[in-house]
Amino acid sequence: MKKILILAFAALGLAGQTTGDGPQFSPDGQLTLPKDYRQWVFLSSGLGMTYGPAASGDPAHPLFDNVFVNPSAYRAFIETGHWPDKTMFILEIRSATGQGSIINAGHYQDAVQAIEAEVKDEARFPQTFAYFGFGGKDSATALPADSSCNSCHGQNAAVENTFVQFYPTLLEVAKAKGTLNAAFLRKSIAEPVAK
Amino acid sequence: MKKILILAFAALGLAGQTTGDGPQFSPDGQLTLPKDYRQWVFLSSGLGMTYGPAASGDPAHPLFDNVFVNPSAYRAFIETGHWPDKTMFILEIRSATGQGSIINAGHYQDAVQAIEAEVKDEARFPQTFAYFGFGGKDSATALPADSSCNSCHGQNAAVENTFVQFYPTLLEVAKAKGTLNAAFLRKSIAEPVAK
Repeated sequence: MKKILILAFAALGLAGQTTGDGPQFSPDGQLTLPKDYRQWVFLSSGLGMTYGPAASGDPAHPLFDNVFVNPSAYRAFIETGHWPDKTMFILEIRSATGQGSIINAGHYQDAVQAIEAEVKDEARFPQTFAYFGFGGKDSATALPADSSCNSCHGQNAAVENTFVQFYPTLLEVAKAKGTLNAAFLRKSIAEPVAK
Repeated sequence: MKKILILAFAALGLAGQTTGDGPQFSPDGQLTLPKDYRQWVFLSSGLGMTYGPAASGDPAHPLFDNVFVNPSAYRAFIETGHWPDKTMFILEIRSATGQGSIINAGHYQDAVQAIEAEVKDEARFPQTFAYFGFGGKDSATALPADSSCNSCHGQNAAVENTFVQFYPTLLEVAKAKGTLNAAFLRKSIAEPVAK
């Protein structure tokens, strides 16, 4: 029985880790870059999307962007169509290469060029959502509440301050749950291609 | 104590699920499409890569490919640079769109066009690795051992039969662990751009 209990509590510890995947801040308010974000849930990627804060506008050198979200927030979104408090997104920007191995056309991903984050934290940020650029470091300070990130996300995002219009699996969830922003829906009717 | 034990065994059940993420076959040998593969570990994506079995060769309509692997196999690869038995990859192919929302250049992902899989199963397949196309269904039969998938992966892949050369985070692991295929290394020396 003692051995079973030890095993059981070890298992409880493992299960507990899966819910402790939200943003981590240092005492002075710096957001820590999660070491394991590549094991978070992938939402989508794009190539050469000029909306990306660090995306290159040079069509000859387009950049890939990969978006990841912490797993517990993903599961909550699937259930509700809303992001829970302590949701965290990582935007990983990589260079694109079209040469190598068997490739004779197209692009695949190469080195990291930038890592950015978006965090939902109602107690920490009066504007609820905050944006971060890591600049090659493993921690980052929130951009000011009136940054261009805040205003663009606030005006154009499909669900809350997040660009769910670019995450095809989640867009379907938001449609089904009725959680698309009113401003996004109005624009979609005016410009149907915007979905 | 009874309540603790129930909780503990529930937790054991949860923990058990995370290691039971390998390929599932029906009694007649059909591979099941995992419902949760979008929560597996994302390896990389590309756009318009003509090596992809279902990729379009039409440069006006390039396709995205997303590659996912079951989490337990990913963790084993990070430790060893090798894929364990019961590794399973999903190749998800999506259409690309450049119109919509705030996008004025570049491409982002849209509807699923095809889903394919690669499975490592030493007991089930004499050739160890097998390839599957789901064709819109939720199960698939392995392609013959002499399929073009088998021969191309066997001749060109960087690690075992897998295109780790296109997964930048794993390529670093394979280099560090010394698990790159000899044929891949020879080609890389002859054509340095192939890495």
